[in-house]
Amino acid sequence: DPNLKVFSLNSNRPLAEEIAKVIGVELGKCSVTRFSDGEIQINIDESIRGCDVYIIQSTSSPVNEHLMELLIMIDALKRASAATINIVIPYYGYARQDRKARAREPITAKLAANLIETAGATRVITLDLHAPQIQGFFDIPIDHLMGVPILADYFEEKGLEDIVIVSPDHGGVTRARKMAERLKAPIAIIDKRRPKPNVAEVMNIVGHVEGRTAILIDDIIDTAGTITLAANALIENGAKAVYACCTHPVLSGPAIERINNSSIEELVVTNSILLAEEKKGNKIVERSVAPLIGEAIIRVHEDQSVSTLFI
Amino acid sequence: DPNLKVFSLNSNRPLAEEIAKVIGVELGKCSVTRFSDGEIQINIDESIRGCDVYIIQSTSSPVNEHLMELLIMIDALKRASAATINIVIPYYGYARQDRKARAREPITAKLAANLIETAGATRVITLDLHAPQIQGFFDIPIDHLMGVPILADYFEEKGLEDIVIVSPDHGGVTRARKMAERLKAPIAIIDKRRPKPNVAEVMNIVGHVEGRTAILIDDIIDTAGTITLAANALIENGAKAVYACCTHPVLSGPAIERINNSSIEELVVTNSILLAEEKKGNKIVERSVAPLIGEAIIRVHEDQSVSTLFI
Ligand SMILES: Nc1ncnc2c1ncn2[C@@H]1O[C@H](COP(=O)(O)O)[C@@H](O)[C@H]1O
Ligand SMILES: Nc1ncnc2c1ncn2[C@@H]1O[C@H](COP(=O)(O)O)[C@@H](O)[C@H]1O
Repeated sequence: DPNLKVFSLNSNRPLAEEIAKVIGVELGKCSVTRFSDGEIQINIDESIRGCDVYIIQSTSSPVNEHLMELLIMIDALKRASAATINIVIPYYGYARQDRKARAREPITAKLAANLIETAGATRVITLDLHAPQIQGFFDIPIDHLMGVPILADYFEEKGLEDIVIVSPDHGGVTRARKMAERLKAPIAIIDKRRPKPNVAEVMNIVGHVEGRTAILIDDIIDTAGTITLAANALIENGAKAVYACCTHPVLSGPAIERINNSSIEELVVTNSILLAEEKKGNKIVERSVAPLIGEAIIRVHEDQSVSTLFI
Repeated sequence: DPNLKVFSLNSNRPLAEEIAKVIGVELGKCSVTRFSDGEIQINIDESIRGCDVYIIQSTSSPVNEHLMELLIMIDALKRASAATINIVIPYYGYARQDRKARAREPITAKLAANLIETAGATRVITLDLHAPQIQGFFDIPIDHLMGVPILADYFEEKGLEDIVIVSPDHGGVTRARKMAERLKAPIAIIDKRRPKPNVAEVMNIVGHVEGRTAILIDDIIDTAGTITLAANALIENGAKAVYACCTHPVLSGPAIERINNSSIEELVVTNSILLAEEKKGNKIVERSVAPLIGEAIIRVHEDQSVSTLFI
């Protein structure tokens, strides 16, 4: 369909190229560079008048640069008379700033949604939002894809036995439950508690892990503090081995060092965020979300439901 | 007035402190830092409920960081029940992206205005917009201050004789005319023309510069290409000496080197943009806009006109 155009910005060009291949199109011609003073300069080098345009951009680090690239691209497409502007955000940055946890905090996840709508987006396709409530921050249609099946398939192929799926906190139990259903395994939950103020947290484990291979699952792994402490607690409680997985490998600050020094055998992630070469240690296994996102774009473009993508 | 609060973000804290001193208040307590992954974290450490809040922030380089700090701060203030959110943007970034000069270009100056309004700003105070039309990009009240009097005063105090005010291009003639009126001097205009395609531009001078001290004036000096070529042309046409001035010293890329190697005696700028220490060469003279902006804030807060600030 010549009316379907896919453009990539700068956050994750390899993923965008894979997605284009899945769909069977070439990436649209555009350049996204910087003026001498650092301002973003966008040139769209082909007509998109009347087209359904899909922009692939994760708002991963540097988040402000990537978000502004997205907003400026949407503005340019709108003024160039695109019929629809569909933004594909495999990783939605600022998702953890999704509520006022303290007085006078911003809700930046909502602000970002407002900015994206103001710029002129007409639809959002995204993956594993930190909180599913963020869907409601948008007043335009949003398709929310899930990474669990991709991560589960990896462990299924690996053929591990006697596994238990572990959520590193109470917030992640639904996700662990979905993984457990796919892998026909039981679940366990790490129950962090601070017995008294100014006393170190204790990691209590709810569920049976002794003699089992534990698979920790989270949506985002950022500094990897939580996940590596959880892995240690699992080993201390008799787990035979610990694997970890997440959809979004933010992996900032001490993350890689912590993972390398931890008892985690492998960390399985998706390519929702482009991993810098120096982060690709030998413990990290990457699985692609391109088939999932590519199929979602095809279905959205043909006005079909994407919900069966998760069965 | 305890209802008047002034906050500074990270682009130009020294200027914000000066402005607070002019107004006679302490800067509001807030911290604007980064999470481990680079996301902006804002904490406002005093109540602002029912207050008239003024935020000082230039969207200078790194423009996307500074613009996002501003938007997130506005969001936080709005949710914390500020009565009014007045943003003071001494330098308005992306101002040169103010029209579609080519097909499928964004109009980022308008996008930024929309984003600022969407975040929740209720008023804008700014200085020497690259094009005065940008005022119309906002649907909230905007006060547009001018740097010309501050720059003119410097040259008046210096007591130069036989001066001519020179605009480096046709777009800047109105500004040069204002300066000339204040200094009771004639004007000249650099008339760049390309005689044939692929032939170097020639710098034609309209007006008399021979034997005179030329003062070049522009709103923004970025890479300093235009201004240093103009200075050379003035010397070649018999100017006795060349000074330059601008409101906004962007000074990116080769700017400092070009200025140091040029025939410009002094470059007079304002502190609308914080100059990095390494840019403060011995040719650069800085004048403060704090008295102007401070007075504007006082008048706006007292519902008085700011237009007499320019007489
Ligand atoms: N980029 C970030 N890095 C670390 N913590 C964050 C970030 N953004 C928000 N937070 C904090 O993380 C908490 C929310 O995380 P969660 O409880 O997992 O939803 C809030 O207290 C936020 O202040
Ligand atoms: N940050 C920037 N640095 C250099 N040129 C720019 C920048 N932003 C916009 N422009 C270009 O500058 C031109 C407008 O400048 P002007 O003619 O002085 O108004 C347009 O052609 C823009 O593409």
